[in-house]
Amino acid sequence: MEEDAQHEQASPEVQKRIQESFDRQGLMGHLGARISHIGPGRVHIVLPGRPEVTQQDGYFHAGATSAVADTAGGYAAFTLFPEDTAVLTVEYKVNLLAPAVGEYIEAVGTVLKPGRTLTVCRLEVFSVKDDQRKLVATGQQTLICVS
Amino acid sequence: MEEDAQHEQASPEVQKRIQESFDRQGLMGHLGARISHIGPGRVHIVLPGRPEVTQQDGYFHAGATSAVADTAGGYAAFTLFPEDTAVLTVEYKVNLLAPAVGEYIEAVGTVLKPGRTLTVCRLEVFSVKDDQRKLVATGQQTLICVS
Amino acid sequence: MEEDAQHEQASPEVQKRIQESFDRQGLMGHLGARISHIGPGRVHIVLPGRPEVTQQDGYFHAGATSAVADTAGGYAAFTLFPEDTAVLTVEYKVNLLAPAVGEYIEAVGTVLKPGRTLTVCRLEVFSVKDDQRKLVATGQQTLICVS
Amino acid sequence: MEEDAQHEQASPEVQKRIQESFDRQGLMGHLGARISHIGPGRVHIVLPGRPEVTQQDGYFHAGATSAVADTAGGYAAFTLFPEDTAVLTVEYKVNLLAPAVGEYIEAVGTVLKPGRTLTVCRLEVFSVKDDQRKLVATGQQTLICVS
Repeated sequence: MEEDAQHEQASPEVQKRIQESFDRQGLMGHLGARISHIGPGRVHIVLPGRPEVTQQDGYFHAGATSAVADTAGGYAAFTLFPEDTAVLTVEYKVNLLAPAVGEYIEAVGTVLKPGRTLTVCRLEVFSVKDDQRKLVATGQQTLICVS
Repeated sequence: MEEDAQHEQASPEVQKRIQESFDRQGLMGHLGARISHIGPGRVHIVLPGRPEVTQQDGYFHAGATSAVADTAGGYAAFTLFPEDTAVLTVEYKVNLLAPAVGEYIEAVGTVLKPGRTLTVCRLEVFSVKDDQRKLVATGQQTLICVS
Repeated sequence: MEEDAQHEQASPEVQKRIQESFDRQGLMGHLGARISHIGPGRVHIVLPGRPEVTQQDGYFHAGATSAVADTAGGYAAFTLFPEDTAVLTVEYKVNLLAPAVGEYIEAVGTVLKPGRTLTVCRLEVFSVKDDQRKLVATGQQTLICVS
Repeated sequence: MEEDAQHEQASPEVQKRIQESFDRQGLMGHLGARISHIGPGRVHIVLPGRPEVTQQDGYFHAGATSAVADTAGGYAAFTLFPEDTAVLTVEYKVNLLAPAVGEYIEAVGTVLKPGRTLTVCRLEVFSVKDDQRKLVATGQQTLICVS
């Protein structure tokens, strides 16, 4: 994973559309998540570590990890959708590769295959601890564009 | 789905072990989730609807839905594990079948195939609105028993 | 799993449509698979054990197991589709629960959630050896109806 | 996808171990598949197009596509396993991105996360037609190392 600054930015209109939708997601605000990058077909979301997002051993809960992964993939697809459409997750699958600990995790959703009806995304989640970036989850997601 | 009362209860020791572990999960408390049933190889978790668990259109967020599904499956497996072991989610896949709205959702994790190392669970999430119960998500999960 | 005779049959028109499509599948004929039941939203496919469908240890190859599972689910969905449409697999996920050995395996595809565009099926594969039926694989599949 | 020649080769011992195991797979021979590359943590398998591997419309059958994908991922993991162990597929998920047509398909299995017990692979399948390479399926797979 490179620095965000190296990634292409989406148009201001698309960035605004994504950010406004994200701000309406009660869950993301409640978890403390924020968008860290919006590019064409690619969205990053950061979730800081704190007791409210942990499982029983103090790691990031798989549910929190996959909530931000699902959201990153959904908005990555949404950057490529026409105006006046909405995005819904059809399904996703995620492998938890390692316990996630650290200052924060960053979910990266990337469109693998855009489509008029269905879009497929890759989901990756990295933990960041003492400037060390580690892949802690990887997944695949199918989304549908609805009018 | 039948009423919980019809389901077999796990032993008091197992119920205590599961409940104590659940109570240490910061995320579940933060979301407002609670365990509604602990049976051998089967755990139910209820998540009340409120703005803190929604996506942009006011439905239950897929991330919240799958967080409780993942947790229900994890503890369903854990009911069958020996003492002094822990459970970790290896991976799961979930299909979101319908937008989830209502007073609450209930996730049901059921062991399909127990194993010494790996256990496979079925995940189901129902929304409950005006006493109507509707399947809103279905999934499959692999868990590992670690000493 | 009960005997097939206990399952409701699809209409003769639907049975004919499914069987004719199946007969055009080069892969199913080449593997030696045949349909053993066509009900509304449910299709069974039998694959006899023989060296041509094995992996390196003589078990049924996961690829053969999932090929018949995918086909059973696809046709289960197709039984509910309008005439003059086609079915395509969007994605599926399968857990291999146990090595599959025996006289034959039987894949059962069952519609969990029908839809105008997307249909979700449960996939189960049983091995049959000396009249013993054993669940060897379980999965979940998303299909799309195309005109 | 680059040419195979650019990929690092596994040691002769590992290549021999993989090829011998592959040659014992009745299904792969019956389908007409062959290994086209064995690198450390990466295996490619080619499946030529012919009527025996098609679905009802003459495309490569999703079952054939995923059989070679599963096999490529399994052997990719196996290249990293100690001697005197065996590999079993725990589960996999695959998205079929586009109908697969052409002279052949090539499945690429790549280890994303090696582990002592569990290994996670990325699965990709490309169709090749008139020298055009196209991603037709993408997936994710969990494998277990057994003694």
